[in-house]
Amino acid sequence: ITSKLPQTETSIFSVMSQLAKEHGAVNLSQGFPDFESDPYLIELVSHAMKDGYNQYAPMAGDTDLLKEISKKYQLLYKKAYAPNSEITITAGATQAIFTAITAVVNKGEEVIIFTPAYDCYAPSIKLMGGNIVPVQLQAPAYKPDWNLVAKKITERTKMIIVNSPHNPSGMLFSEDDMLQLEALAVRHDLIVLSDEVYEHIIFDGNIHQSAARFPKLSQRTFITASFGKTFHNTGWKVGYCVAPQALMREFQKVHQFNVFSVNHPVQKALATYMKDPDHYLGLSSFYQKKRDFFINELKDARFKIVPSHGTYFQLLDFSKISTENDVAFAERLTKQYQVATIPTSVFNANNEDYKQIRVCFAKNETTLKKGAAILKTL
Amino acid sequence: ITSKLPQTETSIFSVMSQLAKEHGAVNLSQGFPDFESDPYLIELVSHAMKDGYNQYAPMAGDTDLLKEISKKYQLLYKKAYAPNSEITITAGATQAIFTAITAVVNKGEEVIIFTPAYDCYAPSIKLMGGNIVPVQLQAPAYKPDWNLVAKKITERTKMIIVNSPHNPSGMLFSEDDMLQLEALAVRHDLIVLSDEVYEHIIFDGNIHQSAARFPKLSQRTFITASFGKTFHNTGWKVGYCVAPQALMREFQKVHQFNVFSVNHPVQKALATYMKDPDHYLGLSSFYQKKRDFFINELKDARFKIVPSHGTYFQLLDFSKISTENDVAFAERLTKQYQVATIPTSVFNANNEDYKQIRVCFAKNETTLKKGAAILKTL
Ligand SMILES: CSCCC(=O)C(=O)O
Ligand SMILES: CSCCC(=O)C(=O)O
Repeated sequence: ITSKLPQTETSIFSVMSQLAKEHGAVNLSQGFPDFESDPYLIELVSHAMKDGYNQYAPMAGDTDLLKEISKKYQLLYKKAYAPNSEITITAGATQAIFTAITAVVNKGEEVIIFTPAYDCYAPSIKLMGGNIVPVQLQAPAYKPDWNLVAKKITERTKMIIVNSPHNPSGMLFSEDDMLQLEALAVRHDLIVLSDEVYEHIIFDGNIHQSAARFPKLSQRTFITASFGKTFHNTGWKVGYCVAPQALMREFQKVHQFNVFSVNHPVQKALATYMKDPDHYLGLSSFYQKKRDFFINELKDARFKIVPSHGTYFQLLDFSKISTENDVAFAERLTKQYQVATIPTSVFNANNEDYKQIRVCFAKNETTLKKGAAILKTL
Repeated sequence: ITSKLPQTETSIFSVMSQLAKEHGAVNLSQGFPDFESDPYLIELVSHAMKDGYNQYAPMAGDTDLLKEISKKYQLLYKKAYAPNSEITITAGATQAIFTAITAVVNKGEEVIIFTPAYDCYAPSIKLMGGNIVPVQLQAPAYKPDWNLVAKKITERTKMIIVNSPHNPSGMLFSEDDMLQLEALAVRHDLIVLSDEVYEHIIFDGNIHQSAARFPKLSQRTFITASFGKTFHNTGWKVGYCVAPQALMREFQKVHQFNVFSVNHPVQKALATYMKDPDHYLGLSSFYQKKRDFFINELKDARFKIVPSHGTYFQLLDFSKISTENDVAFAERLTKQYQVATIPTSVFNANNEDYKQIRVCFAKNETTLKKGAAILKTL
C-alpha cells in the first residue's frame, strides 16, 4: 500500500507529550490546561446524561447550542448567523478545519497558508490533492506581508487560511490586516478559512478581529472555533464552524458522512453554560495574568521574550543560550532538564529555524513556577 | 462554488426523524434506542470528568480502552490486535469508516459495495475521487452472490466494503461467505472494510463472523465498530477501528488531522465498563426479545415479514398493502398514520424498490406496541 501522506509523521504534540511523560518532565508542550474545567460545567454534562440526552444530536448540532452560538456572534461581532444553515457543531476545531478544507478544495487547487502554521492544515490540503502555498511570517513580529501574499495568488488559488490569534507566535491580525485580507479575497474570489480557536484569549486591551466583523469577508469565510480551548476541556472534543449558507451547505455534506453528529450531553451542557457570556469574556484577563506571571518568573533568564499578544502560548528565543537547532534544543530540554516545550521550526514550510521554542502557559502557577525555575538555569 | 458532492442531500435518517417530529409520529426510523443507557455507565462518565480526564486523550485513544478492545478481540475472535498500533478510537463508527476510506482510496480506484448500503460509504468514496461499484443484494434473502462480485473486480478495484450484520436487511454473512470474501481479497490484493457495528446483535443462535476470525482476511481488513450501538448511547459518538499495522498507520495519519482524538471521559468510562464482557454479550438475547415481541405484535398485519437475523432493524414488505414506491409509502405512513420508518430504496444504487420499509426495534415495549398497533391497521 502506497501512502497518501508519505511525509506525515506522528504530530509534534503527541511526540513531545510522550517524551515529557517518559522523562517525568514539566509538560509545557501540547496546548492544554493542567487545571480543571469549571465543576459547574461538569455537573451540566452529568445532568444532561441523566436527563436522557444520550442519543444522536441533530446533524448540525443541538438546537439550543446553535442558538447560543448565533447569539454570541451577534453580541460580539454584530453578525447574524442562522442556526442550522450557517452553524455546525464539530468533534473539535480540528474536525471543523479538516471538513472545511475537504468540502471545497479540489485536486490542483492552491491554498495559501501562513507559516509557522498549525500542523493540521497541510495534510488536509494534501489529501484533497491541493497544493500548499506557504507565506512565511518573519520572527520576531510574525506580521503578514500582504504584498507578498498578493504575489502568491494565481488563477488556481482557491483558499487562504488565516489564524489570529496566531499559534505558535501569539501575533494578532489588526483591523488593517483584515481589510487587506478582505480586499484580496474579494478581488480574487477566494474562500477564506479563519481559524479563530483562541478568539477569547487576547491581551493588553486588544480586540479580536474576527472575520465575522467584516461583511464582505464573512460572506466567503469558514470560521472555526473551539470549546475545549475556551472552557478548559480540550479532551471533550467539541468545536464548531460558522459560514454563510452556500459554504455551510458543502461543509455539512462532508460533516454528515464524516462524523454525522457530535457528543450530545456535552452540547446540551455547553448551551446552558454559554448563556452567561462572562464564562468566555473573562478569559483574556485570566490568561493575561498567567502570561505575566510566567514572564515575570523568567525575568532573569537568558531567553529573549516578546510578550505574546494572544493564545495561551509564549515564544522563547534561545539564540543567546545555544546554537543547536530548535528540535535538538527542545529534546535536550526535555531529557536533560525535564521541561517539555515545542520547537517551532516544525511549523515552517522549509523548517526555517528562528531559534524559538513555544511554551504553553495554560498551567497553574505551581507548574509555571517550576518550569520557569528550570528555564532560568539555562 | 461547485459542489464536490452535487448529488448529496440531507441523510434519510435526519429527514425521517425530522418528519416524525413534525407529525408527532412514533419514530421507528433512525437507528437509536428510546430507552436509557445503563445508569452505571453514565456514572462512570461523570466520575471520569470529576477525576480530571478532561484534556486530550492520546491520539490513538485512551490506553485503558485500547487494552480492553484488544482483550475483546482475543476473547471473542482469538485475534491479537496491538493497542496503539492496530486500534484507534474514533468519533463514532461513521468517522472510522470515513477515515479508512480517505486513508487508502485514490482517484480513479474502484470500491465494491453491497447495496442496499448504509449511506456514508458512497459519499466518502466519491470525495476521494473513487468509483463506486455496487453489487445488488436481492430481496428477500439479501445474500451475496460471490460469482457476481468476482465479475465486478477489475485492475482498478482497491477495496470491498462488507457489512454483517447487514443494515437494513438483518442478513448475516456465513462462514462460507467470509471464506469466499477472503479468497477474493487475497487473489486480487484488495483492502477490505468490514463494518461490524452490529456485531453484538445476532439472533437465533448464530454467531458473528467477524473478519477478525479469518487470518488471511484480517491481515488486509479495517474493522469498524460502535459503542453507541452496543451500549445504547448513540449520542456519545464513540467507536473504533482495528486493522493490521500497515493499514492502521495510514488510518492514523488521517485520523490525527481529522479529529486528532476523541472524548476522553467517555473513553475512560467505556474502558471500565468493558471489563465485564456481560455488558456486551447479553445484547443478542436482549434484542431478540424485542424483535420477537414486535413481530408477534404484528402477527395479524398485512406486511410480509422475514425475521431479521441481526442488527436492531426489521424489514416489512408492504407489497400486499400498497403499490406506491417505498419513499411515498414511508412518507404517507409518517404524515397520515404517525409512524415513521425508513424506505430502503434510498440505499440502492439505482433506487431499486423492493417495497420494503425498515423499522428500528431498539425501542421499549410501549413504543413497539404503539407502532405495531398502527401498522396493523394498514
Ligand atoms: C491537538 S494537540 C495540539 C494542541 C494545540 O492546539 C497546540 O499545542 O498547539
Ligand atoms: C447516523 S444516523 C443513522 C443511524 C443508523 O445507523 C441507521 O438508522 O441506520
